[in-house]
Amino acid sequence: MKFFNNDDTKVFALGGLGEVGKNMYCIMHNNEIIIIDAGITFPEGDLLGVDYVIPDYSFLKKNENKIKALFITHGHEDHIGGIPFLLQTVNIPAIYAPNQAVGLIKRKLEEKNIQYKNLFIYTEKTIVKYKNIQVEFFRTTHSIPDSHGICVTTPNGIIVATGDFKFDFTPIGPVANLHKMAEIGSRGVTLLLSDSTNALNEGMSVSESKVDEALGEIFKRHNGRIIIATFASNIYRLKHIVDTCKRNDRKIVTFGRSMETNIEISIEGGYIKHKDIFITPEESKKLPPNKVCILCTGSQGEPLAALTRIANGNHKQIKLQDDDVVVFSSSTIPGNALSISRTINKLYLKGVEVYTNTSLSDIHTSGHGNKEELKLMIRLINPKYFMPFHGEYRMLKSHADIAIDCDIPKENTFVLGNGDIVSIYKGQAKLAGSIQANDIYVDGNRIGDVSNAVIRDRKIMSNDGIVVVITNIDTINNKLLGSPNITTRGFVLVNENEELLKKLEEISKNAIISKLNQQINYSDIKNEIINQLSNYIFEKTGRKPIILPVIMDIKRNVKVTAK
Amino acid sequence: MKFFNNDDTKVFALGGLGEVGKNMYCIMHNNEIIIIDAGITFPEGDLLGVDYVIPDYSFLKKNENKIKALFITHGHEDHIGGIPFLLQTVNIPAIYAPNQAVGLIKRKLEEKNIQYKNLFIYTEKTIVKYKNIQVEFFRTTHSIPDSHGICVTTPNGIIVATGDFKFDFTPIGPVANLHKMAEIGSRGVTLLLSDSTNALNEGMSVSESKVDEALGEIFKRHNGRIIIATFASNIYRLKHIVDTCKRNDRKIVTFGRSMETNIEISIEGGYIKHKDIFITPEESKKLPPNKVCILCTGSQGEPLAALTRIANGNHKQIKLQDDDVVVFSSSTIPGNALSISRTINKLYLKGVEVYTNTSLSDIHTSGHGNKEELKLMIRLINPKYFMPFHGEYRMLKSHADIAIDCDIPKENTFVLGNGDIVSIYKGQAKLAGSIQANDIYVDGNRIGDVSNAVIRDRKIMSNDGIVVVITNIDTINNKLLGSPNITTRGFVLVNENEELLKKLEEISKNAIISKLNQQINYSDIKNEIINQLSNYIFEKTGRKPIILPVIMDIKRNVKVTAK
Repeated sequence: MKFFNNDDTKVFALGGLGEVGKNMYCIMHNNEIIIIDAGITFPEGDLLGVDYVIPDYSFLKKNENKIKALFITHGHEDHIGGIPFLLQTVNIPAIYAPNQAVGLIKRKLEEKNIQYKNLFIYTEKTIVKYKNIQVEFFRTTHSIPDSHGICVTTPNGIIVATGDFKFDFTPIGPVANLHKMAEIGSRGVTLLLSDSTNALNEGMSVSESKVDEALGEIFKRHNGRIIIATFASNIYRLKHIVDTCKRNDRKIVTFGRSMETNIEISIEGGYIKHKDIFITPEESKKLPPNKVCILCTGSQGEPLAALTRIANGNHKQIKLQDDDVVVFSSSTIPGNALSISRTINKLYLKGVEVYTNTSLSDIHTSGHGNKEELKLMIRLINPKYFMPFHGEYRMLKSHADIAIDCDIPKENTFVLGNGDIVSIYKGQAKLAGSIQANDIYVDGNRIGDVSNAVIRDRKIMSNDGIVVVITNIDTINNKLLGSPNITTRGFVLVNENEELLKKLEEISKNAIISKLNQQINYSDIKNEIINQLSNYIFEKTGRKPIILPVIMDIKRNVKVTAK
Repeated sequence: MKFFNNDDTKVFALGGLGEVGKNMYCIMHNNEIIIIDAGITFPEGDLLGVDYVIPDYSFLKKNENKIKALFITHGHEDHIGGIPFLLQTVNIPAIYAPNQAVGLIKRKLEEKNIQYKNLFIYTEKTIVKYKNIQVEFFRTTHSIPDSHGICVTTPNGIIVATGDFKFDFTPIGPVANLHKMAEIGSRGVTLLLSDSTNALNEGMSVSESKVDEALGEIFKRHNGRIIIATFASNIYRLKHIVDTCKRNDRKIVTFGRSMETNIEISIEGGYIKHKDIFITPEESKKLPPNKVCILCTGSQGEPLAALTRIANGNHKQIKLQDDDVVVFSSSTIPGNALSISRTINKLYLKGVEVYTNTSLSDIHTSGHGNKEELKLMIRLINPKYFMPFHGEYRMLKSHADIAIDCDIPKENTFVLGNGDIVSIYKGQAKLAGSIQANDIYVDGNRIGDVSNAVIRDRKIMSNDGIVVVITNIDTINNKLLGSPNITTRGFVLVNENEELLKKLEEISKNAIISKLNQQINYSDIKNEIINQLSNYIFEKTGRKPIILPVIMDIKRNVKVTAK
């Protein structure tokens, strides 16, 4: 690292730049580090078998003694999902989070059997002070209650991180604290880090109140059961579905574990009232269809989610009826378009009516602000320097252009990647090197033991399968013991390809014998099997499976496997 | 099959209903069958390793002697891609196709070394007559030249299949033959099969001339190289890119095999003029950037396509420059959103300007008509019965609703699946059973030998890999010969998990020994290994790899593998 000097303040991301996911931002001054958010990413596409991607915590591990606390802006997975993994790796003296997030974090730690005592609730009134760093909070609007921006005062200037936000002047929850933002802005802010998710979208986002109206319309129009799929994390959406059901005299059955968890915590926190509106599937069967609303997961066509199983006709408790109405109160996350489309087709096939946000635009709104909202934030906070965060590269780039439109000089904008360091000294900021900030893969319950090599093997096997060739040899007498055993998985239909497999056995046998007659070299035998089999297999089938020869030299008790 | 009687006319799809892809429709009267189109589907999502999906040809194989000819509406893969597979399976006496499609089919057959002599060009003037069936053609507008609808006269009435179409009153190629459609309509049509691809879209589609204007604007605005990614199959788009380059004095370099093939065939067929506008990559390097246009594949972010490699910085001949402009003259096919988004981010990272059809709406238009165009077709052809084709179920459903709006009685619309038969007798149509019409998978060069079981294995291995346990036993002396060999692929990083693998070896050993002491039963030993290992592995790693035990009973010369 090259900085102004040791008295500078460093700002960098371990995750969240160049991606929507695993947000984790650090502010460091001398021997003090504070962390903002600790998220995960759900991998899409080609990270086969990987369950989560988390930031590389090695910088934090090395500087463990400097860490003061982790501050959480709100309770979404891309901001809190990494906490269990972080706590398993690094000693974190304290976590400060708003009420709703604390509920979700507690649940998460219980599930993973992690004991952690220093989890504290903050409110807008809280001020956390360290030797050099002071932390304050301001209320924003997002799709989950208790979302906050964070204002960090350092010896070198004020740094503001917005968290996720939109502006909604007719929200379902409380209005964002415009006055506190303005007040912070008038103090003079050196650096603003702001949410770039919707920086490519023109104008202003749709108010949640509009969604409320659109939902209300659907409730008025239909007499069948209304089945609503939405993001379980969108607590305000859940809240107005509950309120709409209350107004329309419908009871609610919920399906999907994340949906149930979020509703429980929201009832505990007081965000959702009318606890008595929730009924069991059995109770719902006794009610006429126009008294029932089914609230479920599956808005992204996830294979195991409730709505997907309902559409497939294999949900144990819900069978679709002709006059059912299905509402997708959600948007399409890129990468899920195909599975959503399949679910919708199946619903149509079952004869039910389907509403989506392409057929009815006000049925969903994002929790992130569009261009005009981003401008309002920049104008209110009025920073000297600007660093777009929370977004893919093109979003960050577009957000920087928005800041330039709002009179931030181009040279004062930092469009960076994870690990890049902004160094601030006496109100001046510059780019100052970078630290390691890789993607770490979590598969099952193990962190980081799935590498790109493992994923490459999975990729090959997912396309063409594996052919295992097992052979017993006796190199003392230069003999092949019995014929090689050919076993395949994911390659061809075994029953219909006996001839092909017989031929593979024969080729392997000849390959081994041809090499046995020479000086013994296991790796030669192995390579000969791989070469001959892969050529033959490609010619015959057009496929390139993994060829895995296992040679057991029985008398010498040597086992050789291809690396 | 239950029909009116043996003198009825049967209409059914082997592919194309409930999907966008592998179009194949059959019309059968007594001993005569004609086939319309022979397409493939490129599988997306979870059909791991499958290269193409084709229709089940078994009905055609069984009724081979009745087949008169295959008629091709136009030269897109979802209409001609199945021809090589069909010809390998079924004897087809003749194929009739329009000029551009014949060029593409010939190329396809050459590539696969298939000799076929009976490929004929038809025009609008062609009439093909069989004993009971007569076939005529009418010109439509689509994104490829020479697209036609097909009019089939049978003893039981006239059946019209539109092929793919839109209406564009200011097209790049010739206007659709509205007069012939009207003339056919005035003869009295019994059944219309019509393209449902865009039946969910309101209004009329954008004219290609609008796209021409939008492209012209980009050419005027920029002085750097212009890189355009589009569908290689969209010949009219290629044509106006060529014309725009001509007007703006730019030469064209093409990248991507399908792009080169389509341009060659289009130049041969006279659809694209200005052959001299195409230059080599080397020649382009000698020209200033404002004289160069790069036309390439990769509009869907396909991993190996030219634009993807350019964006990744690993294209051998093209390195991006600061003032380059990249234009996606294309739409996003669901399932490709993520890879397209990655490509765009990489392009932004390289600092080039990017235009997509979300940033500039007139930069692409579909080749398929929206609702108002579909209504025009229904009004012109004015059929008694209506069967939407070429679409997913919700598109078919929406198209049927459009037909009902156009005064077709609801009971005269047939929203069907592949294999369902419409039987027509003396101008009356009804649903009459169904035939087998499964999806057949092609992987590499083999048809149908990848089953759902093989794909299920691929799926498991793609998530969690495979653990192979190889063990030599001697059941005559009830002895385990040496320790079992544990080999894994795609499971864990082997180097970092020696302890885990050692433990798996030990568990396998104990499992085998515990069973060896009893009556010999290979399948017991096998199951014991699978049970014990899978429990331990799931507990330790949270993963569920395939466990593949191979038992070799050396003295008895028996090899046992888990099925």
